[in-house]
Amino acid sequence: MDQYMQAAYEEALAGRSEGGIPIGAVIVRNGEIVARGHNQRIQKGDPILHGEMDALTNAGRRSASFYRECTLYTTLSPCIMCSGAIVLYGIPEVVIGEDVNYPGEVDFLRSRGVKVTILNDPELIGMMKEYIDENPAVWNEDISVEL
Amino acid sequence: MDQYMQAAYEEALAGRSEGGIPIGAVIVRNGEIVARGHNQRIQKGDPILHGEMDALTNAGRRSASFYRECTLYTTLSPCIMCSGAIVLYGIPEVVIGEDVNYPGEVDFLRSRGVKVTILNDPELIGMMKEYIDENPAVWNEDISVEL
Repeated sequence: MDQYMQAAYEEALAGRSEGGIPIGAVIVRNGEIVARGHNQRIQKGDPILHGEMDALTNAGRRSASFYRECTLYTTLSPCIMCSGAIVLYGIPEVVIGEDVNYPGEVDFLRSRGVKVTILNDPELIGMMKEYIDENPAVWNEDISVEL
Repeated sequence: MDQYMQAAYEEALAGRSEGGIPIGAVIVRNGEIVARGHNQRIQKGDPILHGEMDALTNAGRRSASFYRECTLYTTLSPCIMCSGAIVLYGIPEVVIGEDVNYPGEVDFLRSRGVKVTILNDPELIGMMKEYIDENPAVWNEDISVEL
């Protein structure tokens, strides 16, 4: 994985070390990481702070023209909430670490004109699979699935 | 408007009195308001805290079965981020105060099986129109439109 996905992975690992769900994201503009984030469901008790949303929060208030020069890197395929946020803000490109453990909303993103690349990195797949196997209840809560 | 939309309106007015964007939302379950929220872009400098998202945050961590018994009331038609969050969490019904000042993503919500009712209440339309007329830059930032 490149330096940006590596940074998203480091965010996921930071979340895991805090006892959280290991999903991380970074926002890159003109080659520079402008914001980082990771899932905060457990750490902050906040259901909307998926990794991608946490990165958007940490980016702060930005103009439409700012977002349009950004690429979002995320370790796991974005759910419909995060995909909606990407579409709302007009982020034109998303790089996804893996979509094996969760399919996300790739078709939706592409239907709204977002360029999507899926890496399916074995290290990222293994990290998330291990977490889901060990924490099925928290994971199902995060994607709002009935146990 | 009924007591629930009135509560969402009061949230919008609270936001306005704080100098914020006047959009409010409440989440109702079995006739009881379980969470309230309003747009916090200006107050908290947070781009993801639209009114609906703030209400979801304030509801805290909930199970899928909880969300499936909820109705979300919002003063303004939800954007694609908030609509995505509604779909992710499986909230089956949304009542929208007005869609005149912003069309939102009603077709998307309905395509994902959400029941949508649009009131187009004159008081809510007037409040939002006045805000947009007086604060076009902030409003365009909130929906990520180029000025």
